[in-house]
Amino acid sequence: MKLIIERNQLMNSIQHVMKAISSRPTIAILSGIKLEAQQDYVKLTGSDSDITIESTIPREEDGMINIHDVQPGTVILQAKFVSEIVRKLPGDQVEIESDDELNVTIRSGAAEFKLNGQDAEEYPQPALLTTDNQFEIQADVFKNLIRQTNFAVSTQETRPILTGVHFILEDGVFELVATDSHRLASRKINLNDDAQNISFRNIVVPGKSLSELNKILDDHQEKVYVSVSDNQILFKTANVNFLSRLLDGNYPETSRLIPEQSKTTVSIKSRELMQTIDRASLLAQDNRNNIVKLATMPNQLQITSHSPEIGTAEEKVETMSIEGEDLKISFNAKYMIDALRAIDSEEIEIAFTGAMRPFILRPQNEEESILQLITPVRTY
Amino acid sequence: MKLIIERNQLMNSIQHVMKAISSRPTIAILSGIKLEAQQDYVKLTGSDSDITIESTIPREEDGMINIHDVQPGTVILQAKFVSEIVRKLPGDQVEIESDDELNVTIRSGAAEFKLNGQDAEEYPQPALLTTDNQFEIQADVFKNLIRQTNFAVSTQETRPILTGVHFILEDGVFELVATDSHRLASRKINLNDDAQNISFRNIVVPGKSLSELNKILDDHQEKVYVSVSDNQILFKTANVNFLSRLLDGNYPETSRLIPEQSKTTVSIKSRELMQTIDRASLLAQDNRNNIVKLATMPNQLQITSHSPEIGTAEEKVETMSIEGEDLKISFNAKYMIDALRAIDSEEIEIAFTGAMRPFILRPQNEEESILQLITPVRTY
Repeated sequence: MKLIIERNQLMNSIQHVMKAISSRPTIAILSGIKLEAQQDYVKLTGSDSDITIESTIPREEDGMINIHDVQPGTVILQAKFVSEIVRKLPGDQVEIESDDELNVTIRSGAAEFKLNGQDAEEYPQPALLTTDNQFEIQADVFKNLIRQTNFAVSTQETRPILTGVHFILEDGVFELVATDSHRLASRKINLNDDAQNISFRNIVVPGKSLSELNKILDDHQEKVYVSVSDNQILFKTANVNFLSRLLDGNYPETSRLIPEQSKTTVSIKSRELMQTIDRASLLAQDNRNNIVKLATMPNQLQITSHSPEIGTAEEKVETMSIEGEDLKISFNAKYMIDALRAIDSEEIEIAFTGAMRPFILRPQNEEESILQLITPVRTY
Repeated sequence: MKLIIERNQLMNSIQHVMKAISSRPTIAILSGIKLEAQQDYVKLTGSDSDITIESTIPREEDGMINIHDVQPGTVILQAKFVSEIVRKLPGDQVEIESDDELNVTIRSGAAEFKLNGQDAEEYPQPALLTTDNQFEIQADVFKNLIRQTNFAVSTQETRPILTGVHFILEDGVFELVATDSHRLASRKINLNDDAQNISFRNIVVPGKSLSELNKILDDHQEKVYVSVSDNQILFKTANVNFLSRLLDGNYPETSRLIPEQSKTTVSIKSRELMQTIDRASLLAQDNRNNIVKLATMPNQLQITSHSPEIGTAEEKVETMSIEGEDLKISFNAKYMIDALRAIDSEEIEIAFTGAMRPFILRPQNEEESILQLITPVRTY
């Protein structure tokens, strides 16, 4: 194998596939990057067996030649070293050459590295995903969907299914739901007409996969093509294939958790409420659940927190409207801040159904179909 | 005690004194900030007993009124909480009030915090430093002196005296020396005439104190006044007093470590050499001492490194001149990179006295009296 490749393109691809590579791989070969050189492209692969990322560098793109003088071949390189080396190489181009004994030479400017490669035959073949269940979505829209839900997945392995985000596609409506059983985040959008013929209900994508995917997806990229099978999901962009396993098991039925009517409804500016709760939480971090208290007052919410050793915080926030019963309720400040940040709307509506029942946050302007649910903590 | 104070000024002072406050203080009261309000100023104090920092906010400065409506008094506030609270307060001004039971109320905008204060009587009095040994130095010059030497102090407590920087002042020449016994950094400057009457030889300032001082000193500040006594050193700027204990014991005689003649002298561009060594060290981090090898060649230095499991790196760097014997020598790449970074000169001179003897780096242009010494590692 031999090729000359533009360093920036190579670095970019290495950074993509590194997202899948674990520092403690289950099998040793997965600490490597698979580098496959063909006349028309170079393909890099990284995997931790849960996630597999392939990044392709086409020989020519946008009128630029990325790859020169290819002698095809494939080799496995130590990911940790090759990424650092390529990052620090002095030249704009990198020459990579592998001999029959898998001795790999990397040259750029006056620098020459000789690395011990590994046999590509030992690298696991990614299971090919073949399915007709494909739909497309704008990359920036999809990144938002991930950002607005993925934070709410469980980080505990006691119920593994909750460490993933539930994907539902029915009648052209794509919905993501995540819950750690204390709070729930859900977001729906209408896909274009092509998605009318596809539907699935029990697809649960590991939260970690979505975090890594989110880092790779580029806001400027046009489209992501999503295909699903029983145990895998593929996210495909122009040059990247991101393959993730799905979580086994049935995702709990979450729609019945969402109260259908409310006893107290508050409209309020999101940013002011968030900053007030953030301040109050400074004195709440001492107690176990980071609890702040909310009480309705005429045209105001009172936010308080208390830590016996440190002191108390108290602040009133003007509301735009309060309707229904008076209310005092306690909740985890972090959940509230996460939810407000996810909604990303200037004005929000909070619907309470009493101090012991979950409450719901939605944007005041219902254009975005997003819902955040938080279970209160019993203190009052 | 009661006062209204500009939030930015208060925040700035809090950040200064926080540099002295340990997360695990030796006595509980030192987890607090001492806040002293007087008609003409507010003084904050933080201390870990090794370092004490006082930051003063004058009532009026540059035509701006920083403090309003003062009722004098002193109280101790939990540093961790008060710094976070002040940082997040909504208003431009902060009202602080303490009652006879040490209940402290902090108000800003609609936010109100009530904190449990502590009695200022319990806070240790900083030992007053009285001495005539005072000299002045430009803050930006002093920051550079610290940067160019302090990295070379020992991080190990086996020889505590080496965890400090040796300060010497004789005949108006101020010198800083640091060594961890593997490498040595030294920098001299001429002070102005006022310093001719002051001299000291056995002042050793903890490296940690200098790191914290360096964070507080502002490049734009005009002058630092330095006073020394037998066991303390005071760095004084317009609004900050930074007091540090000195290390006990005699600093080793380091001048005899510096070879007076050399067998091989190399002139080379600093940045290219640094980048080459940085690249070579990628394959050297596996071996215990991060060793790279240097060999002289006609008009070039060859830099190599080798890790049996990973591979080898090899690169040649053009020199401006090489004089004297041929040489092969091995050294810790990190020491070399640290030294080149400290010298901060486009062209440097390296003077070798054989493969087993310490070598010296100096700027090619001798305007700055800086010297970096590195002990080689035996491998060739």
